[in-house]
Amino acid sequence: MTQPAMTQSPRTLAEIAEALGATVEGDGSLTVRRAVHPSEAEGPEDLALAMDKDLLALLSGSKAVAAVVAEGVEVPAGIENRIVVKRPRYAMAGMLDIFERPVHAEPGVSPQAYVAPDAVVAPDASIAPFAYIGPRARIGAGAIVLPHVTVGADAVIGEGCLLHPGARIGERVEMGARCIIHPNAAIGNDGFSFVTPEPGSVESAKTTGRVVGTNVLIRRVNSIGTVILGDDVEVGAGATIDRGTVTATRIGNGTKIDNLVQIGHNVQVGTNCMLCGHVGIAGSTVIGDRVVLAGKVGVADHVKIGSDAVVAANSGVGMDIPPKSVWMGYPAVPRARAFEQYKGLARLKRLYADVSDLKKRLTAIDGGPVKVEEEKAEQQE
Amino acid sequence: MTQPAMTQSPRTLAEIAEALGATVEGDGSLTVRRAVHPSEAEGPEDLALAMDKDLLALLSGSKAVAAVVAEGVEVPAGIENRIVVKRPRYAMAGMLDIFERPVHAEPGVSPQAYVAPDAVVAPDASIAPFAYIGPRARIGAGAIVLPHVTVGADAVIGEGCLLHPGARIGERVEMGARCIIHPNAAIGNDGFSFVTPEPGSVESAKTTGRVVGTNVLIRRVNSIGTVILGDDVEVGAGATIDRGTVTATRIGNGTKIDNLVQIGHNVQVGTNCMLCGHVGIAGSTVIGDRVVLAGKVGVADHVKIGSDAVVAANSGVGMDIPPKSVWMGYPAVPRARAFEQYKGLARLKRLYADVSDLKKRLTAIDGGPVKVEEEKAEQQE
Amino acid sequence: MTQPAMTQSPRTLAEIAEALGATVEGDGSLTVRRAVHPSEAEGPEDLALAMDKDLLALLSGSKAVAAVVAEGVEVPAGIENRIVVKRPRYAMAGMLDIFERPVHAEPGVSPQAYVAPDAVVAPDASIAPFAYIGPRARIGAGAIVLPHVTVGADAVIGEGCLLHPGARIGERVEMGARCIIHPNAAIGNDGFSFVTPEPGSVESAKTTGRVVGTNVLIRRVNSIGTVILGDDVEVGAGATIDRGTVTATRIGNGTKIDNLVQIGHNVQVGTNCMLCGHVGIAGSTVIGDRVVLAGKVGVADHVKIGSDAVVAANSGVGMDIPPKSVWMGYPAVPRARAFEQYKGLARLKRLYADVSDLKKRLTAIDGGPVKVEEEKAEQQE
Repeated sequence: MTQPAMTQSPRTLAEIAEALGATVEGDGSLTVRRAVHPSEAEGPEDLALAMDKDLLALLSGSKAVAAVVAEGVEVPAGIENRIVVKRPRYAMAGMLDIFERPVHAEPGVSPQAYVAPDAVVAPDASIAPFAYIGPRARIGAGAIVLPHVTVGADAVIGEGCLLHPGARIGERVEMGARCIIHPNAAIGNDGFSFVTPEPGSVESAKTTGRVVGTNVLIRRVNSIGTVILGDDVEVGAGATIDRGTVTATRIGNGTKIDNLVQIGHNVQVGTNCMLCGHVGIAGSTVIGDRVVLAGKVGVADHVKIGSDAVVAANSGVGMDIPPKSVWMGYPAVPRARAFEQYKGLARLKRLYADVSDLKKRLTAIDGGPVKVEEEKAEQQE
Repeated sequence: MTQPAMTQSPRTLAEIAEALGATVEGDGSLTVRRAVHPSEAEGPEDLALAMDKDLLALLSGSKAVAAVVAEGVEVPAGIENRIVVKRPRYAMAGMLDIFERPVHAEPGVSPQAYVAPDAVVAPDASIAPFAYIGPRARIGAGAIVLPHVTVGADAVIGEGCLLHPGARIGERVEMGARCIIHPNAAIGNDGFSFVTPEPGSVESAKTTGRVVGTNVLIRRVNSIGTVILGDDVEVGAGATIDRGTVTATRIGNGTKIDNLVQIGHNVQVGTNCMLCGHVGIAGSTVIGDRVVLAGKVGVADHVKIGSDAVVAANSGVGMDIPPKSVWMGYPAVPRARAFEQYKGLARLKRLYADVSDLKKRLTAIDGGPVKVEEEKAEQQE
Repeated sequence: MTQPAMTQSPRTLAEIAEALGATVEGDGSLTVRRAVHPSEAEGPEDLALAMDKDLLALLSGSKAVAAVVAEGVEVPAGIENRIVVKRPRYAMAGMLDIFERPVHAEPGVSPQAYVAPDAVVAPDASIAPFAYIGPRARIGAGAIVLPHVTVGADAVIGEGCLLHPGARIGERVEMGARCIIHPNAAIGNDGFSFVTPEPGSVESAKTTGRVVGTNVLIRRVNSIGTVILGDDVEVGAGATIDRGTVTATRIGNGTKIDNLVQIGHNVQVGTNCMLCGHVGIAGSTVIGDRVVLAGKVGVADHVKIGSDAVVAANSGVGMDIPPKSVWMGYPAVPRARAFEQYKGLARLKRLYADVSDLKKRLTAIDGGPVKVEEEKAEQQE
């Protein structure tokens, strides 16, 4: 399982092309061992990845003798052997499956790990030094638990999961197969839930617009629920997912969560969603399937976002969003309306000038506004 | 101290009602062992929590024979035994105190922990495997230090504190009694403080609006201060609190800090504040008592926020906020003004149409604007 | 290397003034051992730092007999011995170099650390209990690796680096000399990169404004690149830096990254940049030299920010920014334009009143708008 220093097992161009559903131009029997940036090629065993237009130009100075290029582009002279792909981004995924550099993991349980006597670890799982596996926790077949990971009591880790260093898996958390938890992600934390004996400042601000109650006494609402992740979920570095108050916070199959995302207690996220860096979702919100929240999107509590919705970066969502819609802004509105607002905002200076001009011209005709009207306008401000 | 697999000690409905100041309808001598979501009840020992209207409907299909409901609601037939509560959110807190599922912690110091020879650990504290307690650090009575926690040299942990896995307590940090530090929170980090020999780009941008100085040389300002937390403070998963430059960054009694919040060096936060997920507070800012900053609020450095103020989610605060006020927006302004701005923004398209119409109508009367005026307006843009 | 309990080695005022390029008033031979906040001075060996105007007033009640003050201020009576500095913020840096309180670190490799047999650790490096050094990793001269740090396989840590507790250094990551990695920072994580076989929801939203494709199938793009940090880089607590897809994510010499910052895969950051708390930079973006991004700034993917640019807090950058410019807002625009927009927004209510007044007055003259025009305006909305 130990990673070879810097090379992969050799492949022919024809083998790679077949795996990608691509075609070969030149010598398909040529053998390569690494996939590299064109300017980082060191010799004939390096395959230069030049699917981007910008990278194509670098091929002429590259030490590579083979490259991967997009269909229909003009390749600089000197690179006679090419794998030609149709959808470059998708081909990249296939390429990096072939040339993947898996993380180092020793087989078996390290003598420097802690495994509770009643925890159950699959025989082919890998438990690194300084990993902690709590009472009654279960680690599935082929799972890899890297150094400094904490798996709490009664947690269940599915087969083929990969837990990166410093990942914190709380008590009773369950995850399906093939999940990847990145460094220092924390799953199954207590929810941020407090209550005042009488309605507090936020409750009064929401209902009256003013602060009436004050939070002189605040009481903790304990979380006795958990977090359940489906299969193939990824949780980014430093991301946090709080457990449900009574039942589970849930993340559906295939959903990908980026670094430093925060997901509140009781939140329900569907399948195949993409939650980008710094996204924050407040408690009890429900996110449909295949929803994309771009970087830094904040979503209020108890909101519903429909399936296939896309929310643009930095938006603040305070209300329900229908399926298949594109929203943006703060507060977030449908994309067309947001663009209209930005356009309006950008032209405001001109509008003020126009109105000022109209005023002068109209005053030249009617001698100015009626006094009473003007005073009323002043008072309203 | 080990947690029982999935049940709590049994309680009668009457006992629970008494603890909550609630009333019982039906058989008060009925015994329950778990508090559950209505649809997750498995039998007669489960108490279904149905204080939310949405959950009430689920009671009819529930396997529970007892439920907690809000006063004045109509309960579906079949649930004859009920605890009836007045303020559901508050009752929930009481309920989850009774049915709390405390984290697993072994008594005493694990042989796999590291405790510096001159550290002082209370006899009834719990120190888990792979916890690190630095030189001269003191761990109070009943404190629980979970796996992978780092307690730096000279730090002081008050009695009854709970430090979750991966919490980093920096050197000299002090915390009062009953603080809860969630996974991977980092307290007592160096401040982000750098200075240029001559005024740099930010200083010139602030004073002149343009970049004059550039940061060719930047010098670190070391932090020799610390962080002091009061009693009953919570610090969320992945949250970060930097230490003061010379003296202490301070967090008052009872203040609750959510996940991924960042608090800069020298910041002073009062008592019973609630700082929600992703809040960021820049250096030397002063926050009063009982202030609520909703999710993703950013606060500039050297700002003062008055007691009982509430700031809405995603706002950017660049100036002082008076006590008991509700602010929102970017830049944040009083709530009423923010609403007025949003309303104005939403109607802008209509306003442009109106002005365009007025122009046409006025031109039909006066033949169009005076040329000189128009040119001046152009030049100003 | 062990830190003395609470004092530093003694210095005379004259020695300190010389190191700062400052002057002494009073007795230059006076000896001090600590630099403190005026109100925290305990006796004659404490030097009160009172360069801020606010702190100056505290000197009169201080137990210190010596203080550091800014040039040209009036010092309260009683403090006869003074170091007088010119640029207080810069003098503070010098002062805290002298009175720095270095972190506790034992010499050598702790028997409770894990060091892979083929890792190479410099003889004078310090490796704390529960630190993990992976296969073939190299730890430079004088580097300090604190508890719970993970250094992945093949990583290279330069001389004099300081890795705080819980820092995660991914496989193959390289850093130059004197880098400081704060607690729980994670460097070298997999990029957040996924692709659909056919164009997915985001691609269709960007090109058409509507969601056409949906992300029913999503495929992972593995990251086989790494992260390379230059010399004197700092990475804040909980910050995350993803590795490049094929080549390296790069951070230039002297760049300082604050807490909870997220830097995406393939990003290139120049020298001496300052990226403040909660900044997020999406994949493949290029940041010049000496760029300052204030707190919570978000930058889209594939964007270029020119050298010496300054972006104000909470801004969302969606397009290229020229060198030496100051931008702000969401979406970010040049500062002058942003101010104009805020001003326009603040006066909108008045503008609506003005236009309403103009309408009335004009209608009094021309009898109201032509019907056809009005209907067209309605339809456009």
